[in-house]
Amino acid sequence: MTDSIAAVAAAAPEFGSTEPRRRARALVAVADALTAAADDLIPPAMAETGLPEGRLRGELKRTTVQLKLFADVAAAGAFLDVRLDAADPDFVLGPRPDLRRYLVPLGPVLNFAASNFPFAFSVAGGDTASALAAGCPVLVKAHPGHPRLSDLTASIVRGALAEAGMPADALGLIHGQDEGVAALKDERIAAASFTGSLRAGRALFDIAAARPKPIPFYGELGSTNPVVVTAAALAERSPQIAAGFAASVTGSAGQLCTKPGLLFVPAGADFATDGFGGVGPQRLLHPGITEGFTRRREQVLGTAGVAVLCEGSISGDAAEPTLVETDLATLLGHRDTLADEAFGPLSVIVRYDPAMPLAPAIAELVEGSLTAGVHIGSGEDSPWLREVLGVLGDRAGRLLFNGWPTGVAVTPAMQHGGPWPATTNPTTTSVGTAAIGRFLRPVTYQDCPAALLPPPLRDDNPWHVPQTRSAAGESATWGSLA
Amino acid sequence: MTDSIAAVAAAAPEFGSTEPRRRARALVAVADALTAAADDLIPPAMAETGLPEGRLRGELKRTTVQLKLFADVAAAGAFLDVRLDAADPDFVLGPRPDLRRYLVPLGPVLNFAASNFPFAFSVAGGDTASALAAGCPVLVKAHPGHPRLSDLTASIVRGALAEAGMPADALGLIHGQDEGVAALKDERIAAASFTGSLRAGRALFDIAAARPKPIPFYGELGSTNPVVVTAAALAERSPQIAAGFAASVTGSAGQLCTKPGLLFVPAGADFATDGFGGVGPQRLLHPGITEGFTRRREQVLGTAGVAVLCEGSISGDAAEPTLVETDLATLLGHRDTLADEAFGPLSVIVRYDPAMPLAPAIAELVEGSLTAGVHIGSGEDSPWLREVLGVLGDRAGRLLFNGWPTGVAVTPAMQHGGPWPATTNPTTTSVGTAAIGRFLRPVTYQDCPAALLPPPLRDDNPWHVPQTRSAAGESATWGSLA
Repeated sequence: MTDSIAAVAAAAPEFGSTEPRRRARALVAVADALTAAADDLIPPAMAETGLPEGRLRGELKRTTVQLKLFADVAAAGAFLDVRLDAADPDFVLGPRPDLRRYLVPLGPVLNFAASNFPFAFSVAGGDTASALAAGCPVLVKAHPGHPRLSDLTASIVRGALAEAGMPADALGLIHGQDEGVAALKDERIAAASFTGSLRAGRALFDIAAARPKPIPFYGELGSTNPVVVTAAALAERSPQIAAGFAASVTGSAGQLCTKPGLLFVPAGADFATDGFGGVGPQRLLHPGITEGFTRRREQVLGTAGVAVLCEGSISGDAAEPTLVETDLATLLGHRDTLADEAFGPLSVIVRYDPAMPLAPAIAELVEGSLTAGVHIGSGEDSPWLREVLGVLGDRAGRLLFNGWPTGVAVTPAMQHGGPWPATTNPTTTSVGTAAIGRFLRPVTYQDCPAALLPPPLRDDNPWHVPQTRSAAGESATWGSLA
Repeated sequence: MTDSIAAVAAAAPEFGSTEPRRRARALVAVADALTAAADDLIPPAMAETGLPEGRLRGELKRTTVQLKLFADVAAAGAFLDVRLDAADPDFVLGPRPDLRRYLVPLGPVLNFAASNFPFAFSVAGGDTASALAAGCPVLVKAHPGHPRLSDLTASIVRGALAEAGMPADALGLIHGQDEGVAALKDERIAAASFTGSLRAGRALFDIAAARPKPIPFYGELGSTNPVVVTAAALAERSPQIAAGFAASVTGSAGQLCTKPGLLFVPAGADFATDGFGGVGPQRLLHPGITEGFTRRREQVLGTAGVAVLCEGSISGDAAEPTLVETDLATLLGHRDTLADEAFGPLSVIVRYDPAMPLAPAIAELVEGSLTAGVHIGSGEDSPWLREVLGVLGDRAGRLLFNGWPTGVAVTPAMQHGGPWPATTNPTTTSVGTAAIGRFLRPVTYQDCPAALLPPPLRDDNPWHVPQTRSAAGESATWGSLA
């Protein structure tokens, strides 16, 4: 393990100073190699995770698209945020030197892979893609749920990197919890990312913060993803909403960070839930998840004031979906059991009185969440709704209208993050192009001779990256708000 | 104190949702009010800090310029990082919804003021200016070194905010260490900033990380700011370098985070240090600093292998500068006493053999630092120099050529930060326009009806902010690196 850390650390200087366009070509090569190896990758992925072939092939495609998107981000160079301030003898606070600022890679990143996306949030997943694009070598701590797939993926990535002229050690792989913790404590690791449970994420966050030299720790810890359905929405399209809800809760056996765990529905209104009954048993990802889900499900079913709409069952490593219904008062009284994430096919319908304000209850119940959603009527608007949107927006990284949170597009405007406990750092995202910013730090060169400047800071701009210039004399107008 | 937190928390929704251009006008009003009150502010500042009038008037101007610069940043709206992804039926991973992302204020920020800049890093200083520009109300924990000035400044800021139509409670002030710690633990505080010592900063960082809901903590903890002088530079302009060094070490009685604490000079070369002798005693900021500086100075003077070039003295609350000289071997053997920050007028000259590589020793000696510098000859370049620059660049937030690190321009390309222990978060800055990013978090609206969109996300763009658009169909070309 020490050797793995030494290897990625040794790769950092070369990999980090490579022209981003060259790193971009290597990321595309990695994507192409994974695509070419699909038929080798899918069988172990199916065997180790129990996820169906279609879902896994789609996820592999998402993974390669993600790598290509980050290749584009790297090649475009805007991520370097180059700022060139001209020397300014007339600067309002006295002569200003020539200042040139850009972002440089933080250094080796430790990436704790997730269980539920064996491709897209694992060895070659989003955290790896964004860190590599930034110029940081990545040491992946494999998830124990798919060790063989992890080894195979790492070997394909390393081979593709080397063939593209990059150090193969820009990606390393370790197995085991103790090894992961030891790496997190290692001085050579400059940042860490994690996707998983609140408990494990909190423990690792605490270790990162307690280091003699603390490092940035980007943990995505999951959430309850509350969704509010208004009376007007139900009146317009109750069956469609019910069907969408069932599909979103039970897809991938409910093992998605963005699964809607709380659905607020007007009391008394018809809302069909038979979509849950027909789903049948689905294999859970691994024994640890089965164990945790069994416990959470029993807590929920055992809570007084909860009506069981679809009991489901757990048998061996497979679970049928469970759906319960309760009211706002019960939820407020049992928030620890009912309003916490249950990782698996389970959701809680909460009936509310549409004649009363809902926002204060949500404010009390809902903690930071990756997503929050509303289903509203066509053209619906009201102070009641605005208040609900205000509270949901305060607590979520993504606010959805008339849709379901599962299925996260990988695009520039995607946000996958949110206030604690959704993540350990609300200012960042782990999906979408902005994710690259987690692995960069700014450096300013002051009065540096042209010959010694890093390429992106040079006036002749050999890497052809965007450069934002501040001219001399500008400070005289600051605050005039022209 | 609880009342102060409640007040800033209550101001958050209104203040955070105000059009940035209106907040900008309020920041300019605050700057103008401080300028108008200069004659009331300077006397207590002089009495409480012992800093000379000229320095304090300059610092007050810097503070008002900083407020105006952040007014411009707010008004321009680019800080919102608005990204609009068009709905895309042909998206490569299946239909993409309409996604609109921008940055929103984190919420109430707790700002621990510094001792050494009673204006620029205190009540109305850079952290406050950037947080207010972001839309976050600020609760300042006053530094005990200038309580009266803090009260007066806060009252001027609050008055100006109110007159500009903002809630006066967008700024609050508390006094006392216990009150500061209690506020840092309070659930309503969303982020904290700090400028001060490693010891205090580490303690507060640990408290922020250990909260049930951890929050971002931006601490600037100071550094040693190493400077390397090459033989060629000395041959060209030794007297100018010596004079600049003395002025940088002794300015503001050495109580600047960017004071050069280690100067690497070629062994055997002439280097005049008589500039230190003529400085005379300067008052230190407060008894705590005098105590700490006395201890550090005695450690340095008592280290075997250290030659005293200028002994200086400490008498009452005033100190004369102290300058010592040693060699690389001694420094490597006593890094804890010699290579740690000494906050006050003291620096260590380190003689090195220019025929040997210097970079490895620097790599071993120098931790994360706000700045690092080199003085080089005209046109000088060599593998030796490149290696030194590489190591210094790895460890510093700002790399200076032929200049001195004290005096930090407030501009777009400034970086005031660096790897631990210079700061608790290497990805951010506390000076310069990028500092606003510390107090914002992203939120994405998915398929939101136009009538419910926040103004900066609307197609008609009523706030006239920059919007970056991704068109439908773009994903087909990702990875083609055209």
